[in-house]
Amino acid sequence: MSVDVKKKIEEANAEFLQRVVSGDPVLVDVVPAGDAYADFPARTILHAGPPVDWQRMSGAQRGACIGAAIFEGWAKDADEAISLLASGDIGLDPNHHHGLVGPMAGTITPSMWLWVVENKAFGNKACCRQVEGRQQFGEYTEDALEGLVKWRDVHAPALQTAVRSMGGLPLKPIITKALQMGDELHNRPVAASSLLANALSIPLLQSGLPEWQIAATYGLLGGHELLFLGLSMAAGKSIMDSARNIEYCTGVTAMARNGTEFGIQVSGLEGEWFTAPAPEVTGLFLPGFKLGDEGRDIGDSAITETVGWGGFVLGGAPGILSFVGGTPDEALNYSRQMRQITIGQSPDYLIPALGFEGTATGIDIRKVMKTGIPPIIDTAMAHRNPGHPIIGAGLVRPPLECFEKALKRFAEVHGIGQ
Amino acid sequence: MSVDVKKKIEEANAEFLQRVVSGDPVLVDVVPAGDAYADFPARTILHAGPPVDWQRMSGAQRGACIGAAIFEGWAKDADEAISLLASGDIGLDPNHHHGLVGPMAGTITPSMWLWVVENKAFGNKACCRQVEGRQQFGEYTEDALEGLVKWRDVHAPALQTAVRSMGGLPLKPIITKALQMGDELHNRPVAASSLLANALSIPLLQSGLPEWQIAATYGLLGGHELLFLGLSMAAGKSIMDSARNIEYCTGVTAMARNGTEFGIQVSGLEGEWFTAPAPEVTGLFLPGFKLGDEGRDIGDSAITETVGWGGFVLGGAPGILSFVGGTPDEALNYSRQMRQITIGQSPDYLIPALGFEGTATGIDIRKVMKTGIPPIIDTAMAHRNPGHPIIGAGLVRPPLECFEKALKRFAEVHGIGQ
Repeated sequence: MSVDVKKKIEEANAEFLQRVVSGDPVLVDVVPAGDAYADFPARTILHAGPPVDWQRMSGAQRGACIGAAIFEGWAKDADEAISLLASGDIGLDPNHHHGLVGPMAGTITPSMWLWVVENKAFGNKACCRQVEGRQQFGEYTEDALEGLVKWRDVHAPALQTAVRSMGGLPLKPIITKALQMGDELHNRPVAASSLLANALSIPLLQSGLPEWQIAATYGLLGGHELLFLGLSMAAGKSIMDSARNIEYCTGVTAMARNGTEFGIQVSGLEGEWFTAPAPEVTGLFLPGFKLGDEGRDIGDSAITETVGWGGFVLGGAPGILSFVGGTPDEALNYSRQMRQITIGQSPDYLIPALGFEGTATGIDIRKVMKTGIPPIIDTAMAHRNPGHPIIGAGLVRPPLECFEKALKRFAEVHGIGQ
Repeated sequence: MSVDVKKKIEEANAEFLQRVVSGDPVLVDVVPAGDAYADFPARTILHAGPPVDWQRMSGAQRGACIGAAIFEGWAKDADEAISLLASGDIGLDPNHHHGLVGPMAGTITPSMWLWVVENKAFGNKACCRQVEGRQQFGEYTEDALEGLVKWRDVHAPALQTAVRSMGGLPLKPIITKALQMGDELHNRPVAASSLLANALSIPLLQSGLPEWQIAATYGLLGGHELLFLGLSMAAGKSIMDSARNIEYCTGVTAMARNGTEFGIQVSGLEGEWFTAPAPEVTGLFLPGFKLGDEGRDIGDSAITETVGWGGFVLGGAPGILSFVGGTPDEALNYSRQMRQITIGQSPDYLIPALGFEGTATGIDIRKVMKTGIPPIIDTAMAHRNPGHPIIGAGLVRPPLECFEKALKRFAEVHGIGQ
């Protein structure tokens, strides 16, 4: 590689890191997905991960698509939904192509209300759907869809009123504080969820909404430990999108999975996905489920690791180990190890258990390939077949093949000899 | 020591540990101190630590007594308060003699509203006063006393309504969870405070109180990170009081300081204080204050260490190190070290950073003297002179002399040869 190209990469990556660490995510609205973007595609289910068609789609994501089609009233039952999806009458497209992210199957349709986060440092916005433990894992019973109905009819409109009345809620202070309260903001956003509830209590009280609706929303906010994941994902997406499309940059802007493939995107290679078969998850199962039930890695939630949270800050979140397995020392070592594959460290997001050092930030595909160390990702587990809720949680590493393909393409684009 | 006496001590200490770990603290009420106990003493200021008279009282505690006398309307200004206190017209007595605890100077007078915690496992109750950063540190300006007025007139009555409507709020689940969220529940009860705010949001909403009063109370709950300290202290006191008065027991039931002396009480030596000069605190200062400004160790808040929280769980609360100093490894070592001087470990209060091991619980005066290791205590710093707010925070160890005196007395009582 010429000195000139090397210098261009270093400059591009420095710019990338600067954009990422200066991200300023603010929760500005809660709206139906169909209203979030003028060009929201009609009769389409947006989903987690890189592109995938119905035939190759994983069981959990199929189940979630069936649920979404029923929820939208596009299909009266699972059989009709399957028929419409298989024929292409209902379209499919990745969330990441529309400024969106969704946990697990990640299905987003026009009537699903989204958290809207604006990155005030750059003016771009990103959205994430509600986090719950059933429909997005592939369950599509009426009971499972009831959670989506309540969010649409009760919780989300109340949150919209509150967030609008506040003129937006800055998320950086909440995230900074939660990282010092044992959260990693992916599988464990319990402190951030609690702090969010505190921040919204007065605006909801003064919203003028009926007391029953405010009480129901307090109930969700105070009782749903994973609630903030929707916000850490939207915040992560809004930050990483600001770092896209920097020529010569080898920084990763997205890691996403659909249960079939794991895909990454790279700032200097805008618009391309570099994919490999989705890996298996190593973890712990909830009662009633066992090894062999699990599907492969799924969800857009690895946007939290892409921005430097989640598995990257596991050392500061040992409380999660009872859920994903491992020891405190292993967790600290994961966080230290991630520094070997990142461009820099955050000056604001600090980990007390690591002596208040900044989180490892900005995955560099070159460093991943040089060290052979893939990122570490906290994740939940969905069933391999449609029709089930969450079955467990664990840790996963993306296939090196994604990074290898990206680096190869980077070399081709810039005429770098292998 | 005879085999018989040794066996009696082991049995007594096993009973002590059993009582402590089975404690079940529930927030049952919020009431004015004068209504908390039928025998609340008239025209008396109850205070932190072992007994002390006005002449020997520390600067911060003098300042807090002046503030309390003005707040009660017993004195119109500081000069009159000092005169009434010095003459004995206003009495002084330790909180611990009345089922109470108070942070820092710990002053409690009849009009100050208290958190009332019942230990449901044994039916006994204990109370703690409000936590704030000014009057209890010795400041007595009108502005400093305004915080006490708002608590009395706005916040505490609202909390009373909410807590009564709930039929009590169990604290063990909150404490258990907060210990896994980086709290040590003494200097850092930030997660517990946030969880408390969540738990009270619906009862306050449905209290029927005016919206402004509910909003003001949400503001306190959501914005006061140290709020829960009053509850961890009352909970600790209710638990440790259930373990008092066990014959032959060498377990510590209270550690308390008044800024002049550090005192401990021991289960098998009921009613006695074993005191030594209060130690100096090593720590960090808030802007505007410096080494030499600080008074000696003060407050009943070491009841949190007595029950096994605070400094004993510092390893799980590295977020506090920016406030008290030290490294994460030192913090973990403190928590491990405390196992050498305690009777056992809690089966419920677990520390993720220590691989989910239980907190070291039940200080044994024999083990302290055998190892020469005094307990480690997280603490705040008050000024050496009256009239100042909080000036810093740090760590402190009680004088071994307290434990030495207690062990000597224990030997005398039971005719054990030295």
